[in-house]
Amino acid sequence: MSKPIVIPQTARFVEPLVLKSGATVSSYELVYETYGTLNADKSNAILVCHALSGNHHVAGYHTEHDKYPGWWDNMIGPGKPIDTERFFVIGLNNLGGCHGSTGPSSIDPETGKPYGARFPLVTVDDWVETQARLADRLDIRQFAAIVGGSLGGMQVLQWTITHPERVRHALVIAAAPKLTAQNIAFNDVARQAILTDPEYHGGDYYAHGVVPRRGLRIARMLGHLTYLSDDVMGSKFGRVLRGGSYNYGYGVEFEIESYLRYQGDKFADSFDANTYLLMTKALDYFDPPHAHQHASLSQTMATARAKFLVISFSTDWRFSPSRSREIVKALLDNNLDVSYGEITATHGHDAFLMDDAHYHKLVRAYMANVKTGEHQ
Amino acid sequence: MSKPIVIPQTARFVEPLVLKSGATVSSYELVYETYGTLNADKSNAILVCHALSGNHHVAGYHTEHDKYPGWWDNMIGPGKPIDTERFFVIGLNNLGGCHGSTGPSSIDPETGKPYGARFPLVTVDDWVETQARLADRLDIRQFAAIVGGSLGGMQVLQWTITHPERVRHALVIAAAPKLTAQNIAFNDVARQAILTDPEYHGGDYYAHGVVPRRGLRIARMLGHLTYLSDDVMGSKFGRVLRGGSYNYGYGVEFEIESYLRYQGDKFADSFDANTYLLMTKALDYFDPPHAHQHASLSQTMATARAKFLVISFSTDWRFSPSRSREIVKALLDNNLDVSYGEITATHGHDAFLMDDAHYHKLVRAYMANVKTGEHQ
Repeated sequence: MSKPIVIPQTARFVEPLVLKSGATVSSYELVYETYGTLNADKSNAILVCHALSGNHHVAGYHTEHDKYPGWWDNMIGPGKPIDTERFFVIGLNNLGGCHGSTGPSSIDPETGKPYGARFPLVTVDDWVETQARLADRLDIRQFAAIVGGSLGGMQVLQWTITHPERVRHALVIAAAPKLTAQNIAFNDVARQAILTDPEYHGGDYYAHGVVPRRGLRIARMLGHLTYLSDDVMGSKFGRVLRGGSYNYGYGVEFEIESYLRYQGDKFADSFDANTYLLMTKALDYFDPPHAHQHASLSQTMATARAKFLVISFSTDWRFSPSRSREIVKALLDNNLDVSYGEITATHGHDAFLMDDAHYHKLVRAYMANVKTGEHQ
Repeated sequence: MSKPIVIPQTARFVEPLVLKSGATVSSYELVYETYGTLNADKSNAILVCHALSGNHHVAGYHTEHDKYPGWWDNMIGPGKPIDTERFFVIGLNNLGGCHGSTGPSSIDPETGKPYGARFPLVTVDDWVETQARLADRLDIRQFAAIVGGSLGGMQVLQWTITHPERVRHALVIAAAPKLTAQNIAFNDVARQAILTDPEYHGGDYYAHGVVPRRGLRIARMLGHLTYLSDDVMGSKFGRVLRGGSYNYGYGVEFEIESYLRYQGDKFADSFDANTYLLMTKALDYFDPPHAHQHASLSQTMATARAKFLVISFSTDWRFSPSRSREIVKALLDNNLDVSYGEITATHGHDAFLMDDAHYHKLVRAYMANVKTGEHQ
């Protein structure tokens, strides 16, 4: 059977974008992919927002030779919970990314060199604005649904605040209304590992022909470790030794070390450190009441009009179920239509990417009630 | 009121020590402090075992000018829960340490240079052996109690296995019977930060006149963050901003960042990176059933004769109460005399160092029943 091939597309925007920071991006590109077919009245569009290390390649394959499909291929495709036989799904790489959209590693047309440290920090608000512009470009006035996990879920939440009339359904998965001090602390340790890497060069490492690989590797090892639950690490790796006995040295001894170092190496070879820094700051900054000068999330959500599906995972200690319940409470305070599912899953925060039967059944059932065309 | 002054002492050992790794340390020194007075029949001695970053300076002050006392001064002293008016308390710096006992930063008499990478890895078993030799030197045949928190608690547990006849009471606080994969993973991220620091120089950084400061700083930030609970970080720091508003840059923005970076800096200026690496490996290796070729902790504890006080703290997610309950179960399986206290505390793993009324009351009450002299 041949693989479903998807071709990334690029949208160029020349209208200057004023960011929340006050900085302006004079022009930029967003790379995106689409799956399925937009219907006649453009009422079946779904936007997928990605998390920290995600990108536009949500489903399918780029070539017949690709070993792995897009990062959410188990969720999105023909006959899948988000069914591309019914829906027209859009995945994009966010502004500041390193997979094709304009970001710190892109060439600044003003200098002919990579932006590096000159690329401004962006926020979830800014991403929603760029995503809205992409929707305008595709002539999509209202999304049937906007979907995202983790940092992606925060973008979904922000959409319902900024553009309430443009979102019929919001799927907020494994998210939090804002980071805690502990969440910020984990991000800051990761950032400090990159920022203090001698090869970071103040963000302009491109000019030196190096990358802050050591720092990025540590950042990823730490991140990855926190996305998994203690349980799943215990059952997958436990205290199993690579060589069967202690070596009394600093090489790999435990299987978990081998796994984490491999994850760190792989990531450090493929991801841009400046993008990683920028994404973690977007996470830290996300705080809708703060951004909208409201006292509480309930007050901030008062203008939302979407129907919501909120999902959390029992062993997710990064954004635990209690964080999702804060969101649910704020929505209920505003008499919004909310479904909430707390999935018993062993995989921790990463559960939102896993092919879990209960979880997928819940999304499938919810999506079956998302109306399109003349039935909406 | 003048401060209680304590003078560190040094014991030199010239009998070669064969370590669990098979390596031999031909001679070594242990620095230690004592508080209180050893009674006539030497039945009131208490040994305090330190944790990852601890040392021999447990209580009192070294000089009148010292700003802070020893690390467990709230627990140990005249009239305190471990009362030095009744007990003779010994604190030592473990072999491999960097506060006076022989360790990687000490001068190797064979080369006249710091040991560096040539210093062998040591285990909890090895520490117990060196502590037993120190006890012999002080003519203490049996301890009234051996006490320790975290990695210190593991040493206490090991004492009751290796030298059951030399421990009347064992106080095992905020410990675990062995690390989980997640625990090991946190240690390995910290180690990788140090090992990949360009200034680590394979462990022989002393010869280069540098220290792997960046790596050690990251290791400490990460460690410190995991010793605190999400709750206490939330109540102490929350999302409070240093400057009141977002700066959209990578400098300090949140108070938690300022705090953690300060902790990292302070530690990196005062602790030896090789010792940090070595201590984390001792943690990883600790696994009494593995070391003693038994199937379970219960089987391993079968020879223990001490009475036990096991204490855990509700918000300690590094060594959670469930880990202490594993220890308690293994002790009860052997019909040993066990008291167990699960303290409701906000401070996470670090709670074992805090001046918590309930916790101190429990230790005080337990210690009141530790008999000495003719009453034991």
